[in-house]
Amino acid sequence: MDRNLRAMAASAGERGLALRPHAKTHKTVEIARRQIELGAAGLTVATVREAEIFADGGAGDIFIAYPVWPSPERARRLRALSERIALRVGIDSVESADALTRAVGPLDVLVEVDSGHHRSGVQPDGAAALTEAAAKAGHRVRGIFTFPGHGYGPGLREQAASDEARALVDADPHAEVRSGGSTPTAGLAGIGPLNEIRPGVYVFNDAQQVELGTCDFDAVALTVAATVVSRTGNRAIVDAGSKILGADRLAWATGFGRLPDFPSARVVALSEHHATIEFADAVPARGDVLRVAPNHVCATVNLADDLVVVSEGREVDRWRVAARGANT
Amino acid sequence: MDRNLRAMAASAGERGLALRPHAKTHKTVEIARRQIELGAAGLTVATVREAEIFADGGAGDIFIAYPVWPSPERARRLRALSERIALRVGIDSVESADALTRAVGPLDVLVEVDSGHHRSGVQPDGAAALTEAAAKAGHRVRGIFTFPGHGYGPGLREQAASDEARALVDADPHAEVRSGGSTPTAGLAGIGPLNEIRPGVYVFNDAQQVELGTCDFDAVALTVAATVVSRTGNRAIVDAGSKILGADRLAWATGFGRLPDFPSARVVALSEHHATIEFADAVPARGDVLRVAPNHVCATVNLADDLVVVSEGREVDRWRVAARGANT
Repeated sequence: MDRNLRAMAASAGERGLALRPHAKTHKTVEIARRQIELGAAGLTVATVREAEIFADGGAGDIFIAYPVWPSPERARRLRALSERIALRVGIDSVESADALTRAVGPLDVLVEVDSGHHRSGVQPDGAAALTEAAAKAGHRVRGIFTFPGHGYGPGLREQAASDEARALVDADPHAEVRSGGSTPTAGLAGIGPLNEIRPGVYVFNDAQQVELGTCDFDAVALTVAATVVSRTGNRAIVDAGSKILGADRLAWATGFGRLPDFPSARVVALSEHHATIEFADAVPARGDVLRVAPNHVCATVNLADDLVVVSEGREVDRWRVAARGANT
Repeated sequence: MDRNLRAMAASAGERGLALRPHAKTHKTVEIARRQIELGAAGLTVATVREAEIFADGGAGDIFIAYPVWPSPERARRLRALSERIALRVGIDSVESADALTRAVGPLDVLVEVDSGHHRSGVQPDGAAALTEAAAKAGHRVRGIFTFPGHGYGPGLREQAASDEARALVDADPHAEVRSGGSTPTAGLAGIGPLNEIRPGVYVFNDAQQVELGTCDFDAVALTVAATVVSRTGNRAIVDAGSKILGADRLAWATGFGRLPDFPSARVVALSEHHATIEFADAVPARGDVLRVAPNHVCATVNLADDLVVVSEGREVDRWRVAARGANT
């Protein structure tokens, strides 16, 4: 993990990019502090509750990269946050810009642009109009942002990085903040026009990143310890299921996770407390403890109360997942 | 929920079946108490930690329907549990029977039989030998159990119920306890040879049960409240993603959940904090709050700290999900 944190900080620094890591991956104050010590410009989060928890943990500059809708209760919390830290909020419509002004007041906002993931965000040619409307509504428009989530597929990340850069250039090449960068695209040259990246998963990496080719097993820094409870033929059943690994499985994944110590093994089935693993060679014995890298580490961390911190093979600490379940 | 609890209790009672609900679905002491008040013979759980939490909550008879491997720490906890409640534990191998005797001592055990789900469990013709070995290892073999998980597919539940019954009859028609019964199969006539059922999901139901035809939307008793944060064309984006709905999606599911108030809507994409919903008719407005039934309610409950209890449209209580994250 320390190696991953240092490598991304160095890579962003060498390219003159602000690094604003997405804390939804680790949800852990101790890791956020390390990211900031290594030079992160601030944090990214997905929810108001995450922002509150990391502000409590000492972060002074947080971007909620989400088109937050200010329900009355959330508006009150957003206002309180904006008074104690440097806060940025995503918007993707005139309605949300106006609703934020009415319910919270003027904020620092970034306009979300759709670069091909087709989730939230305006099309690039709509960014100028929304920027103008948001300014008219009283907000300080600090720039534009996008998430190239369509880079989560084999062989797609170069194209996604290029789409990401083009969308931001098309939206506003002179924006003060031009923010993008998923873990698969954050290291690619194609994102040249950006000046800020927001990768999250790079802290730990996971089976998806290995299968996408973003990293190798040596860079996977979080695994689930699973005990073999049953065996049949070339299969072992371990006691880690979807309630700790998460059920995430993109269409191209080889299974429901990977085993760094058994690269040819495949997790062929998953239920709540069982993972069925097929081995090419000898099947581990009942009672053996195996390391399983989840497909999507953000989901796994959100299912854990604590992370066991291991250094040189020994448990050295436990960190609370302070923002676990911080959905609101 | 009250209707679902009463209906299953009545159905089991009419057929002379012991009802031992699987508490992994609700993970909530208040609901376990209602199940027991309505005549449940005891509870089923998946982990030692779940058993501890429900024992703390007053349950006196608990079956861990899982081939528990007694690591030293878990063995100590199993022994403590067996001294304070009526405890039953699943086994599916001579190795685990012997390991339990060595690490914990004699226990009440049930032999797990594979009825077609092909996860854990011995084949039916192997049950007699394991029963004999477990008795020789000092355990009190109380019976046999199976989980017909292969009934989770459209048109498969009648066959799964029949497989379930045949596997238990083939394993031991005279066993004191012949336990089966998932929610899709629990109500079917095919399970005649069983004398105990262990459904879990029936408490709340979910989108999977609706799409399987086990229940209709009126019987879905748990939904996630999600706010529309973005819109485009015939789609709305709501702020409930995999971190509260869970990422479960079986191949035949129409999407990542269903909307009871919009039966023709489909949840076509899911990320951590976004669900993309396609509407056939008018798209709800930004700020509207929609009810989303998750695909797999067990996963959703395990992502929540509390359940908001609603009666006649009003919040009347909050129940803590006491066994959330109780994986060990």
